[in-house]
Amino acid sequence: MEKKINNIIISDSLKNLSIYLNNNKFSNLIILLDINIENKCLDLLYKDVPILKLKKTIIIKILSGERYKSLKTCIKIWKIFIKKNIDKKSLLINFGGGVVTDLGGFIASLFKRGINFINVPTTLLGMVDASIGGKNGINFYKYKNEIGVINNPIYTIINYRFLDSLPKKEIYSAFGEILKYGLIYNKKYFNYIKKIKIYGIVNWVKIIYIAVKIKNKIVDKDPKEILGIRKILNFGHTIGHAIESLFLLKKKIITHGEAISLGMICESWISKKVNNLSNKDYKTICKVILSFFKIRKIKKKYFKYILKIIKNDKKNYNNKIYLVLLKNIGSASYNHEVHEKLIIKSIKKMNDLYKKK
Amino acid sequence: MEKKINNIIISDSLKNLSIYLNNNKFSNLIILLDINIENKCLDLLYKDVPILKLKKTIIIKILSGERYKSLKTCIKIWKIFIKKNIDKKSLLINFGGGVVTDLGGFIASLFKRGINFINVPTTLLGMVDASIGGKNGINFYKYKNEIGVINNPIYTIINYRFLDSLPKKEIYSAFGEILKYGLIYNKKYFNYIKKIKIYGIVNWVKIIYIAVKIKNKIVDKDPKEILGIRKILNFGHTIGHAIESLFLLKKKIITHGEAISLGMICESWISKKVNNLSNKDYKTICKVILSFFKIRKIKKKYFKYILKIIKNDKKNYNNKIYLVLLKNIGSASYNHEVHEKLIIKSIKKMNDLYKKK
Repeated sequence: MEKKINNIIISDSLKNLSIYLNNNKFSNLIILLDINIENKCLDLLYKDVPILKLKKTIIIKILSGERYKSLKTCIKIWKIFIKKNIDKKSLLINFGGGVVTDLGGFIASLFKRGINFINVPTTLLGMVDASIGGKNGINFYKYKNEIGVINNPIYTIINYRFLDSLPKKEIYSAFGEILKYGLIYNKKYFNYIKKIKIYGIVNWVKIIYIAVKIKNKIVDKDPKEILGIRKILNFGHTIGHAIESLFLLKKKIITHGEAISLGMICESWISKKVNNLSNKDYKTICKVILSFFKIRKIKKKYFKYILKIIKNDKKNYNNKIYLVLLKNIGSASYNHEVHEKLIIKSIKKMNDLYKKK
Repeated sequence: MEKKINNIIISDSLKNLSIYLNNNKFSNLIILLDINIENKCLDLLYKDVPILKLKKTIIIKILSGERYKSLKTCIKIWKIFIKKNIDKKSLLINFGGGVVTDLGGFIASLFKRGINFINVPTTLLGMVDASIGGKNGINFYKYKNEIGVINNPIYTIINYRFLDSLPKKEIYSAFGEILKYGLIYNKKYFNYIKKIKIYGIVNWVKIIYIAVKIKNKIVDKDPKEILGIRKILNFGHTIGHAIESLFLLKKKIITHGEAISLGMICESWISKKVNNLSNKDYKTICKVILSFFKIRKIKKKYFKYILKIIKNDKKNYNNKIYLVLLKNIGSASYNHEVHEKLIIKSIKKMNDLYKKK
C-alpha cells in the first residue's frame, strides 16, 4: 500500500526515491546520516536505491543525539561541502531521525542560500513529525530549535519498514506526538490510537498517513507560522520542552515523547481550569497517556528553572506566557495567556498522579 | 519628492518609518548599527523617528567592515537577543551599510525561525543594492555570502540625505553596481549615469529610484533564484568577487565597486569574444568604467587563486564555470560556460588597460 500527500510519500520501500534520482540529474549526491543508522538502515537504502551505491555519493556521518544538532556540526559540514565543491545543483539526502532531518534541512537551506534536499526519516517520530512541515533548525545556547528556518524538502520519503530495526522505546516516544494529533484535531484518531498495542500487528501506513494528514492540514493553513493557527501543533510542548530541557541539564534521560506527554497532562489540567475542558475528557487523557508513559516527578527546586525556560518559548511575547489549550478531545485553541502560578500548579498536579500509582 | 516601489520607500527623510512604528506595536525595538554610523547618522534617525529615542530601544553596535559579517558576530548577537528576551513580536532595524543589512537580515531571519526586520541603508551601495532583493547572509571560510537565506524585510526605507555624510570614495564604489544595472538592463540609464558628476548637483532620488526599479523587476521574475533570470544581476561579479577576495587575502584595500567594475571589464571582453558584444560597446564600457575607477593590476602569480575562488562561485555546477555575458549595452544573458583560459586572458587584457594609461 502506498499513500501520498503533497510531497510526502508513505510506503514499504524507497523505490520512489530511486525513480526520482534516476529521472533527475544532480551534480552531487550527499547522504547525511547518524552513525547509528549506518549499520541498521544503510543496506536497506542501497537495496532500494542502487544509484546511491553506484554513483560517487558523498557520505557524511554525524554522532547520534540532540547535542549534535548544533552550530558546531553545521560549521563542520559546511566546510566539507566547500572542500567537496558542493554546488547549487547538488542534492542532500537527510537519512535518519529528527536530529538528522532538522539539522540537514537547516544546513541545506543556508548553504549558498539554499540547495535541494530530501528527507528520508528512519524513526517513527521523524515520520510523523520532524521530517514534515518544513521546520528546520538547531539548538542554541540551551534552547531547543532556537535558530532555524522554515523551508520544505523536495520530497519526504517514508518507508515504514525502517521501524523494524527501531528499539521499542523509540516507537513509544513517537506516540507522544501521535496522541497529540488526535487530541488537538481528530477525536476518532485519538480513539483509534489509544487501542494500539505496539507489540501486536500494527497498521503503520494508516497511523503514519493520518498523522501526516493532520499535520499537513494545520501547516497548510499557516506555513510560515504568521497567522498563528500552526501554534496548536505545540500543545503539550511549552511545558514539555521545559521538562525536556531540565532533564538535559541534569543529564538524565527522557524521550521527547515522554516529555511532551507530561506536558500534555499539565496543559490538559490547565485546559480544564481555564478553557472548559470537561473533567471526563481530562481523566481520559491522563489514562491514555499513562498507558503509554510513566509519570516522572519534577522536584520543587526545579520549578524556577522550568519557568525560565517556558518564558523563552517562541510562542511568548511581552514577557507573558501563552499556551495552546484543549476545548475537548479533538479540538484546541491558542494564545491563552496563563499565569505562571497556574503552570506550577499543573506540574504539582502531574506529580500527584505519580503518588497515586 | 518621495518614490515607492513595493515595500521600498525613497525620500529625503525617515518619516515613513516613524509613522509605521507609531501604528504598529512591537514587543521590542532593536537597532543594529555599525559603530561608524553611530556618530554620523544616529541623530538624524532620532530626529525623524523620535519613538526610537523615547522607547526602551535596544541598541546593538558592531565594528565596521566585511570581516564582521561572520558567524561569530551572529552568535554574539543571538546571545544578546536571548539575554534581552527578544520574542517573535520584536522588530530589528538594520541601520547601516551592506554589511549591517546583510548580517541583520540573516540574524533576524533565523532567530526563533524568523522575526521582523526593516532595512534603513545609510550608504549608496546599500540603497541601490544590498538592502533590496531579500538576500541576506554572511561570509564563511574565505567565501563571500556563502551562508545565507532569501527573505524580505517588512520595509526598506531609504533617506538619501545620509549620503551627505558619506566619503566620496564610498559614493564612487556604489557606481560599480549602478553602472551594472544600466549595462544589463537599461541603456538609457547607463547613458544618464555616465554623465553624472558626483561633485556637482546630483538627482539622488532619480538615480536610486531607477536602480531599485531595475533590481526589483529582475528579482520579481525569480525571487528565490530558482529560474536563473536573477543571475544577470551577477554580471561582473564572478571575476569581480574573486578580485575582491584576493585583495582581502593580501590585506590590500579595494572597494566592492572597484572590484566588480574590473570584473565587468573582464566579462565585457569575454562577451565580445563569445557573445557578439560589439567592439564599439566594449570600448564605451571600458571608457565609462575608467572614468569612475582606476585599473588595479593583477599579478600573474595570483591567477591560480582567482580561478580557485571563481570555481566556488554559487552560479557554477559540475565544476564548470558559468558567466553572465552582455549581448549589448542594456542586455545580458546567463549560463554561458566559459573556459578558464578565457578568464585568465580577460584579466591580462584588463591589466593591459593599465599599461596604456
